[in-house]
Amino acid sequence: MVNLDLSNVNCVLDLNKYSEYIKKFEEWCKKEKESPKGMIGWLNYCSRLDTAELDRIETVAKDIRSKFDTLVVVGIGGSYIGARSMIEAVKGLYSKEPIELIYLGNTLSAKYTKQILSYLEKKKFAVLVISKSGKTLETTIAFRLLKQLLKNKLGEHFVNAVYIVTDEHNGNLLDEAKYCGYETFYIPSDIGGRYSVITPVGLLPMAVAGVNIREFVQGAINAEKILSSSDLTKNQSYQYAVMRNILHKDGKAIELFVTYEPQVRRMCEWLKQLFGESEGKNKKGIFPASAVFSTDLHSLGQFIQDGNQCLFETVLNTTERDDEFVVPKEGKDFEELNHMAGKPVSEINQIIFKSVLKAHASQGKVPNIVFNIDKLDEYHLGYLIYFFMKACAFSAFIQGVYPFDQPGVEVYKENAHALLKNEE
Amino acid sequence: MVNLDLSNVNCVLDLNKYSEYIKKFEEWCKKEKESPKGMIGWLNYCSRLDTAELDRIETVAKDIRSKFDTLVVVGIGGSYIGARSMIEAVKGLYSKEPIELIYLGNTLSAKYTKQILSYLEKKKFAVLVISKSGKTLETTIAFRLLKQLLKNKLGEHFVNAVYIVTDEHNGNLLDEAKYCGYETFYIPSDIGGRYSVITPVGLLPMAVAGVNIREFVQGAINAEKILSSSDLTKNQSYQYAVMRNILHKDGKAIELFVTYEPQVRRMCEWLKQLFGESEGKNKKGIFPASAVFSTDLHSLGQFIQDGNQCLFETVLNTTERDDEFVVPKEGKDFEELNHMAGKPVSEINQIIFKSVLKAHASQGKVPNIVFNIDKLDEYHLGYLIYFFMKACAFSAFIQGVYPFDQPGVEVYKENAHALLKNEE
Repeated sequence: MVNLDLSNVNCVLDLNKYSEYIKKFEEWCKKEKESPKGMIGWLNYCSRLDTAELDRIETVAKDIRSKFDTLVVVGIGGSYIGARSMIEAVKGLYSKEPIELIYLGNTLSAKYTKQILSYLEKKKFAVLVISKSGKTLETTIAFRLLKQLLKNKLGEHFVNAVYIVTDEHNGNLLDEAKYCGYETFYIPSDIGGRYSVITPVGLLPMAVAGVNIREFVQGAINAEKILSSSDLTKNQSYQYAVMRNILHKDGKAIELFVTYEPQVRRMCEWLKQLFGESEGKNKKGIFPASAVFSTDLHSLGQFIQDGNQCLFETVLNTTERDDEFVVPKEGKDFEELNHMAGKPVSEINQIIFKSVLKAHASQGKVPNIVFNIDKLDEYHLGYLIYFFMKACAFSAFIQGVYPFDQPGVEVYKENAHALLKNEE
Repeated sequence: MVNLDLSNVNCVLDLNKYSEYIKKFEEWCKKEKESPKGMIGWLNYCSRLDTAELDRIETVAKDIRSKFDTLVVVGIGGSYIGARSMIEAVKGLYSKEPIELIYLGNTLSAKYTKQILSYLEKKKFAVLVISKSGKTLETTIAFRLLKQLLKNKLGEHFVNAVYIVTDEHNGNLLDEAKYCGYETFYIPSDIGGRYSVITPVGLLPMAVAGVNIREFVQGAINAEKILSSSDLTKNQSYQYAVMRNILHKDGKAIELFVTYEPQVRRMCEWLKQLFGESEGKNKKGIFPASAVFSTDLHSLGQFIQDGNQCLFETVLNTTERDDEFVVPKEGKDFEELNHMAGKPVSEINQIIFKSVLKAHASQGKVPNIVFNIDKLDEYHLGYLIYFFMKACAFSAFIQGVYPFDQPGVEVYKENAHALLKNEE
């Protein structure tokens, strides 16, 4: 179960005012759904998802694992963070089983590219290119470099080591995939990058990595049902959206997403993209930042406790207990730890969570929104992903901005395009 | 060379006002230096550093590399981020040569701990524990778990696989090191955690990892000289400190540290600790955040370009050229890349930097402070580390807070202590 705890924010939900917003939002969603240019396909994508599509994803994933020892996932932004964040959250930061996943196409750093390409020299790898438009510079350049390497190894058979996820109707990647005969999966045209982790964009790499995508989709389907209520007193995704806007109006410029699990750090990156790109327009938006505790209590902790009160925290608290590692007892108790000998490390992590909540929220007056998450598994992650997407769309609606575009990203791209043309 | 470029902030340095601050700051530094409780030892630590100490660090580092295949660095906060950030910046994210470094003691996550300990089962590893006080919970628990593993492997000889860096005069880690006879290095009492990367705290793990610590120290020594001027028109570390405070007074709540190299990401974490802990007190401070471009242009880019104007950017721009990887030409130009075929990836990264600078600073009116860094090597990193430490101390002084303590971090620790005592 996932439960939203709003008892540490010291603010009250204004039920009347925001219930009005909900009505208007749900009407707007209907219109967006019916519009030919609407981008709200994610709202019931999972419950409409064909079993045949899941079967095909799992079959191809199995095929990739049987033929290759490494999969290079090539993508950036929404074509990358979602899948990687879910894989890390489920499998941990260092898993190479059942297959190693490597990420490229998310940077133009020559240093990073060199490290990856020289590592791949000795590997039997496949390439999975994920791009809706097929035009993104980072992705296309990385794809070409990888094709070069594959062609050196496999000659004309390189096409059998290339897999594609792209728009179902348009784009140069679709053209190339058809021309070369790459195995291809499709992104519905009415779902944008940062809402696409529930489509093959996320599901294919997750399935290859051994993540149970049926459980993940089931979590999202249940969220669709549970979070379909129009009643603010019952719908926690609406409650979360409303509360963060109340805090923002109260002067908080920053939302700090917090986890106590290092392997959830990248899910916070996914949240930063989701909220930052959806809300950050027309000079509006809450700046999204993230921290991993207890690590960052020893870096950002001082600021949060006692510095400029410009932020609130949103804590993903996974309450799962694990008794495998306990504090060992020693003969000479130099570190003064023997009084907690036998206590599981996971329990101490929860004690730190409670101590920090009290320190930050009660003593430091920093509002804390808390998600209590029973288990860090595919089902709960699918639920959370849908929860945050719905909350984000509603939150942007409250702020009066369109949640599904990102016009500001084009500005530097146009500058780069001009520079690259002139320097030819 | 490192050069600070303030031409994209659209603000003027108020020379008269801040020259007065410099005078007072330098007088204050002298008093801090003379005070028995002063914490400003880092100010000229490198130029005072004994060659014999560097010799000993390098000898022990060589010894560790010859006896073990893995070094586990156990520390948190200032006892961890500095060394790791420098090692990654120099050696890249995936280097296992000349030895693999693993990090523990920076979290209480059972999931993370399990991954690391099971990986170590098959490794011939040494443990390097870094803690000034010796009391930090994360570090002491990890150390006990590692001792357990080492004792199972080596019995009483485990002491030969343990190395310590701790306070020169006090603490339980010092007591244990003396009792057990661990090889031990010392942190001067007048240097705090986040200013300690220039001491054995940073130098020993860096040397083990094959980072040239003599070049690093030389960079810091040259920074000491170059940045000793009291003239604001000449001293770039003072200029940087002043400019960020002018921007803060102008309404900017957030400083976003930006790099275009993924392997510099953790150096931004070091910066976040340095500034966040030094300034974030008495309800003051600039909130430190970070981003890796171009990756995060596809997540935070929209917000920066067009969202709430609550931030300024501080960009670490490494201008180093690398011609090894160029855009390949293809027969069928689906991706429309042939017009830039033959262009080095590193050059395209610089074109993106210029395009983003124009988009954010000129078109988006987001102030940009730019550091142009000729080369990402030990010398330049040593220079930068000192540059930022001096700028940070001055910046905190301008804000009227003491830069070298972190009283707010104690609040949650006291809560945790009480909870752990009660639950015995």
